[in-house]
Amino acid sequence: MCKPQICRAKKRGKKCRPVPKAPILACTETMIELNFAKTADGLLPAVVQDFKTGEVLMLAYINRLAWEKTLATGKAHFWSRSRASLWLKGETSGNVQLIKEILVDCDQDTVVYKVEQLGGAACHTGYRSCFYRKVEGDGLSVCDQERVFDPAAVYGAK
Amino acid sequence: MCKPQICRAKKRGKKCRPVPKAPILACTETMIELNFAKTADGLLPAVVQDFKTGEVLMLAYINRLAWEKTLATGKAHFWSRSRASLWLKGETSGNVQLIKEILVDCDQDTVVYKVEQLGGAACHTGYRSCFYRKVEGDGLSVCDQERVFDPAAVYGAK
Repeated sequence: MCKPQICRAKKRGKKCRPVPKAPILACTETMIELNFAKTADGLLPAVVQDFKTGEVLMLAYINRLAWEKTLATGKAHFWSRSRASLWLKGETSGNVQLIKEILVDCDQDTVVYKVEQLGGAACHTGYRSCFYRKVEGDGLSVCDQERVFDPAAVYGAK
Repeated sequence: MCKPQICRAKKRGKKCRPVPKAPILACTETMIELNFAKTADGLLPAVVQDFKTGEVLMLAYINRLAWEKTLATGKAHFWSRSRASLWLKGETSGNVQLIKEILVDCDQDTVVYKVEQLGGAACHTGYRSCFYRKVEGDGLSVCDQERVFDPAAVYGAK
């Protein structure tokens, strides 16, 4: 993992700790430019990961607007494909995702948002993670974890 | 996280541990059917995560063929968008990804492959993870982590 110890201390307004003898991790800066032209619809995937546990909470899509809103506000924004509109995650449920760190991949066409998940659940079904099922044998094992919230109470009955 | 204790013990051929009093985790089985019709090109994202550390190593795309090959072989297969062909990850580098667990999301249009990364590196640049850079201020911080391999030696000079 990336450990630019010097940069982090400065960012927090703290005095830099002595630079460790080895390994010295040199940081070089490049401009952030995601490759939105990679896909026909200008959407790139954003993996959302719990910043403490590393659990993958969800995956959603960003366009340039959602990306810029995320950087500007520190809250995860996406582009809703079903509603075709900007989507502040948690705008209805209150389960906002506070950005702790953003990673960018080698091709600059995918990002990882490391977040603090407010309300304890990312999934619209009420589960903590959208990935609450796993493949077992020829089927999907659905574990009756306790839901963090009742979807009908949060989003209204359908 | 999913903890179907009863199922896991059985799978390993071991005697089941006493079922914990509370919470009792009931597992229900449903058929695995990913929603490949969700996208125009029939491709769905697959997040690849180190099964031990939780580090996100890469993201690539699967179609039905790649998904079936993955399930059948226990090795991560994708659909290469640039080559428009089935892609066994590691077919050139030898850095195959052995499937340890597969998670499926609420909409059945995204999967997480939890893998053992052979060769220690997932990225074609030689880094362990494709996400070797992070956003810092207005730029991307590229940390000179040591590369696990030299791309020219593995893929040939370009």
